[in-house]
Amino acid sequence: MTLVAEILAIGDELIHGALLDTNSKYLAIELERIGAVVHRFSVTSDDPDQLRSAIADACARADVVVATGGLGPTLDDRTRDVVAELLGGPLQFDAASWTQIQAWLSKRGRPVPESNRRQAMLPPGGTAIPNPVGTAPGFDVRIGRARFFAVPGVPREMHVLAAEYVLPAIAAMPGLTPTAQQWLRILGPSEALLGERIEPFMVPGRNPAVGITATGGLLTIRIVGTANTQEAAAAACEATAKELRPIVREWLFAEGTAELPELVVQQFTKAGRTLATAESCTGGQIAARLVDVAGASSMFAGGVVAYSNAAKVALLGVPQALLDQHGAVSEPVAAAMASGARERFGCDFAVATTGIAGPEGGTAEKPVGTVCFALAGPAGTRPWTVHIPDLGRAFVRDRAVFEIWRTLLAERH
Amino acid sequence: MTLVAEILAIGDELIHGALLDTNSKYLAIELERIGAVVHRFSVTSDDPDQLRSAIADACARADVVVATGGLGPTLDDRTRDVVAELLGGPLQFDAASWTQIQAWLSKRGRPVPESNRRQAMLPPGGTAIPNPVGTAPGFDVRIGRARFFAVPGVPREMHVLAAEYVLPAIAAMPGLTPTAQQWLRILGPSEALLGERIEPFMVPGRNPAVGITATGGLLTIRIVGTANTQEAAAAACEATAKELRPIVREWLFAEGTAELPELVVQQFTKAGRTLATAESCTGGQIAARLVDVAGASSMFAGGVVAYSNAAKVALLGVPQALLDQHGAVSEPVAAAMASGARERFGCDFAVATTGIAGPEGGTAEKPVGTVCFALAGPAGTRPWTVHIPDLGRAFVRDRAVFEIWRTLLAERH
Repeated sequence: MTLVAEILAIGDELIHGALLDTNSKYLAIELERIGAVVHRFSVTSDDPDQLRSAIADACARADVVVATGGLGPTLDDRTRDVVAELLGGPLQFDAASWTQIQAWLSKRGRPVPESNRRQAMLPPGGTAIPNPVGTAPGFDVRIGRARFFAVPGVPREMHVLAAEYVLPAIAAMPGLTPTAQQWLRILGPSEALLGERIEPFMVPGRNPAVGITATGGLLTIRIVGTANTQEAAAAACEATAKELRPIVREWLFAEGTAELPELVVQQFTKAGRTLATAESCTGGQIAARLVDVAGASSMFAGGVVAYSNAAKVALLGVPQALLDQHGAVSEPVAAAMASGARERFGCDFAVATTGIAGPEGGTAEKPVGTVCFALAGPAGTRPWTVHIPDLGRAFVRDRAVFEIWRTLLAERH
Repeated sequence: MTLVAEILAIGDELIHGALLDTNSKYLAIELERIGAVVHRFSVTSDDPDQLRSAIADACARADVVVATGGLGPTLDDRTRDVVAELLGGPLQFDAASWTQIQAWLSKRGRPVPESNRRQAMLPPGGTAIPNPVGTAPGFDVRIGRARFFAVPGVPREMHVLAAEYVLPAIAAMPGLTPTAQQWLRILGPSEALLGERIEPFMVPGRNPAVGITATGGLLTIRIVGTANTQEAAAAACEATAKELRPIVREWLFAEGTAELPELVVQQFTKAGRTLATAESCTGGQIAARLVDVAGASSMFAGGVVAYSNAAKVALLGVPQALLDQHGAVSEPVAAAMASGARERFGCDFAVATTGIAGPEGGTAEKPVGTVCFALAGPAGTRPWTVHIPDLGRAFVRDRAVFEIWRTLLAERH
């Protein structure tokens, strides 16, 4: 027996592509952590007909549905109404929720508009999920075979209601399937070549399941195992990893479910090495991703976003003559940026990026996508150039950032 | 008559929360741009049973389904097989695709593993969608009432196949509904209060539809209109905006469907003003978001990510005495960072952030979430402090970045 979960994200802003749904990814990770098996995510609009069918469909397939969004105080927030309609009864006023909403607004010196009363209405048979960080309470109700949880779509509020109510409630339900993951990071082969090498592991129905994900030139072998306990699931994943390691040894450069910047932070911290960044076309993205990692302060000193030539000179000490002679996007300038950052931040290593992200700025000699990099370290400074396909500004930047992770992870301290 | 579209993202890495699906948002925007009406996105795993039911469900509801993922060369990529199964026929070898795959690999000096042949197989009745940027061709096939397009999940490849084949093919289908959007950005009222003010506009079925989205303390009134032509849809949105403007005048601070950093770039460029950044707890995120905007180079000189105290002193000229006396997270240090950046980059304005993003570093006096800001400009330097709820490192950072957009957009040049 398996507890099957679905995740439903509700909102016109999502279906029109105005906002990226990050809630479902978060909920998928957390639901899996407690042992629910997630089969599907859906995104639907606030349109009553669309919303009704999306909720009914999910509740017909799953044991548990977690829905985010559509709980605001305004008329375009319809999750409550549509669920009441599906259950064939009127909305019911919940005095406790109304008291809480009033208290929350008053405490912030806000007026209490009558329209906030909408948020204190519950579908028939529903239980309010208190919201300590906003006005919208969630609710917990049975719809057909499924237990349906509605929480606000604002990620900050969703996190709190999920952690304090929804996830503990699901963790107490029967049928949980403890699940664990392990990832092997691979650089070198094509996806097809790696697939051939590990083909015997990739049969449908294998437990742990083994799959390959390709992102930005990197391959990840994902091992996902289930067992009676979390520990046994982790042990099963490790047993599969143990079989796989000798097969992919030559290409394996990192392990663990951490993101690449986390691996960089871990590797540098372990080696007691420090890093600085000098970014032009990546515009601070490398620094930002490092700072996102808790504990980065022990290895990351800081960086300069030297977007203008003047900044490259003033902040990083790049000689004006180099800029004049070779142009900002050149290996000599990348090298000067890296060594300047290394020196000014007093670090063991520094990396630099300077390139043409587009859409303007490309020339015949240096087309959009030309990016020069440099790594400065105790052994000296090494610049190199990569020609990234011109598939948009964001793409060029992301590939350049990835090139840096790859370079830093290849650095053996 | 309406051309209803659904988007399906396929992959174990998505359903396990290992990767965020950004393809669906991109496709939603592009599909709407050509006049298809998107009703639902779904995310499913590579599991054959799950995949089969997700494809069958979407094809039963929509006129057009665009699916991303599951076209790789390895055994865990099952979109082709599952579609063939649904259509009740065997996969057919497509010699032209195989030639293209071989050429693509050979050109890159890669071996041509036999397993790549899987990618040249087509479901019965399918037409191959050539892939000029990778090995996985897509396909275009009828499943029940729907036209089903399968393209690779790698965003770079998806973008190319969508732009070159899928979107033009859909744009030639009957039943398109030209759609336009307009956004009004609001700061000040609660969502409920704004909702009451514009309630007559928020009735279901209104065209243009009017909705409110709340993100990070900012409200956006989204106006979405449909008509016989794109121009008429845009005119209808503008007519609604014209009615709304006087009603929300006091809170309206920006218009247009651009993101906030784009609005900052536009505003500074129009005013001929330049900006620099000095970031500690936001770690380069402000600079990175600005650099993401095409044309940012005319107003953004650069920034310093001064994560360590030493970097604040060496790169921004923050007096060591200020750090000793007040600590790194203090208004005097924020002010010194901003004025140091303004001076060193030679800009009209500079902003600074220094705060405690957590999980470590909080104290009773300065708990996690305490962030000090400063804005330095021709009129002097103004520091201030915001206590952001401690809802995780990423949350504190995002709210701090938002505070900067808000501050810069409030600056009237």
